Amino acid sequence: MRAICLLSGGLDSSTALAWARNKGYACSTLAFDYGQRHRRELSSAAELSHRLGADEHEVVTFDLRLFGGSSLTADLPVPVDGIAPASIPSTYVPARNTIFLAFGLAYAEVREAEAIVLGINALDYSGYPDCRPEYLEAMGRVAQLGTRQGVEGRAPALLAPLVRLTKAEIVKLGTRLGVPWELTWSCYLGGELACGVCDSCRLRRKGFEEAGLVDPLFYAPQC
Amino acid sequence: MRAICLLSGGLDSSTALAWARNKGYACSTLAFDYGQRHRRELSSAAELSHRLGADEHEVVTFDLRLFGGSSLTADLPVPVDGIAPASIPSTYVPARNTIFLAFGLAYAEVREAEAIVLGINALDYSGYPDCRPEYLEAMGRVAQLGTRQGVEGRAPALLAPLVRLTKAEIVKLGTRLGVPWELTWSCYLGGELACGVCDSCRLRRKGFEEAGLVDPLFYAPQC
Repeated sequence: MRAICLLSGGLDSSTALAWARNKGYACSTLAFDYGQRHRRELSSAAELSHRLGADEHEVVTFDLRLFGGSSLTADLPVPVDGIAPASIPSTYVPARNTIFLAFGLAYAEVREAEAIVLGINALDYSGYPDCRPEYLEAMGRVAQLGTRQGVEGRAPALLAPLVRLTKAEIVKLGTRLGVPWELTWSCYLGGELACGVCDSCRLRRKGFEEAGLVDPLFYAPQC
Repeated sequence: MRAICLLSGGLDSSTALAWARNKGYACSTLAFDYGQRHRRELSSAAELSHRLGADEHEVVTFDLRLFGGSSLTADLPVPVDGIAPASIPSTYVPARNTIFLAFGLAYAEVREAEAIVLGINALDYSGYPDCRPEYLEAMGRVAQLGTRQGVEGRAPALLAPLVRLTKAEIVKLGTRLGVPWELTWSCYLGGELACGVCDSCRLRRKGFEEAGLVDPLFYAPQC
């Protein structure tokens, strides 16, 4: 029983990988070098793949800076003033999860994987449209209709075990499953220390705080 | 009114681009350097983009040889013995159109395009699952749910003007719209001359023959 686990090196995808291992899946992890602002999350992903017991790790490389349209892939400032409610922030990268899942489908087919596991969640999140359950359902239909596996009636299940969890619940789950938090990297900026004030850092800190647990990561003095 | 046109440099995608131009779309073409067997189709795509009046052309680069699983991206022989009915041939590349369309969605969002045009067809085709209308419908749902454009109620329409045409009808349409056939490249092999016997060459030759038109391409002496 094999799962392709999309792994960014952050808190969510690491917990999703730990969940898949805990469920008994042999795991192939897949990371993406897509022109993001920093490469730190890529080394985190490689290390976490190994530490959490995946048996292979691949990195797909392409450059979304070709299109831009996001503060993660173009020369735009990353917002640090707090998460705006009910809007899609500039850190949203156009069609990113669709691109990631499309590569996941290719990998799943070649590995004959039964599942693709990803760490998206739609409660304490940044408002990205491609993190919602209804989006994932639509991608499930694509898996059924657009691949050889699907035509043969064994499309991989798209599993998002965190999709309806709060960040605090994710932190508790990951802690229980032994995610080495010190290896994860969430900050959009990729400095020596996590900035603590980008949306991703804010969500992470809120999660640890509400879970009553200590985040072992060091944050920049400003926060 | 802008369309993103996926352009491989072959007969179908060139005709689809000509169709979009004829409908009045300003066109941005998108080609993919994905580790295919040869690069000849990429130079065809660039030339056709210009000749058919697109105003920009981008190439996204990634390497599907990382996964393999196809005779176009792994060291497997390309079949040349004729098209097997009711089966998916080895030239099928896992999730290729989903990957292409995912990048198309990203490009569409940044360009605020109203449409993505692609040359898939499901009559005289190679039996690839990701060329069928029901597949495209599923991707349309992804466009609606997984992008900012979709959330804002202006998801790009996914247009496949050739999806229910025979190859002969496509050849007639392309001829009427002035596609410079001599610039197109269909052969999977990418030799000096088109092989004439791979599935793609066979479909092309059958199309011209049934349309009663002359294919200006030179084929290898074997056929």
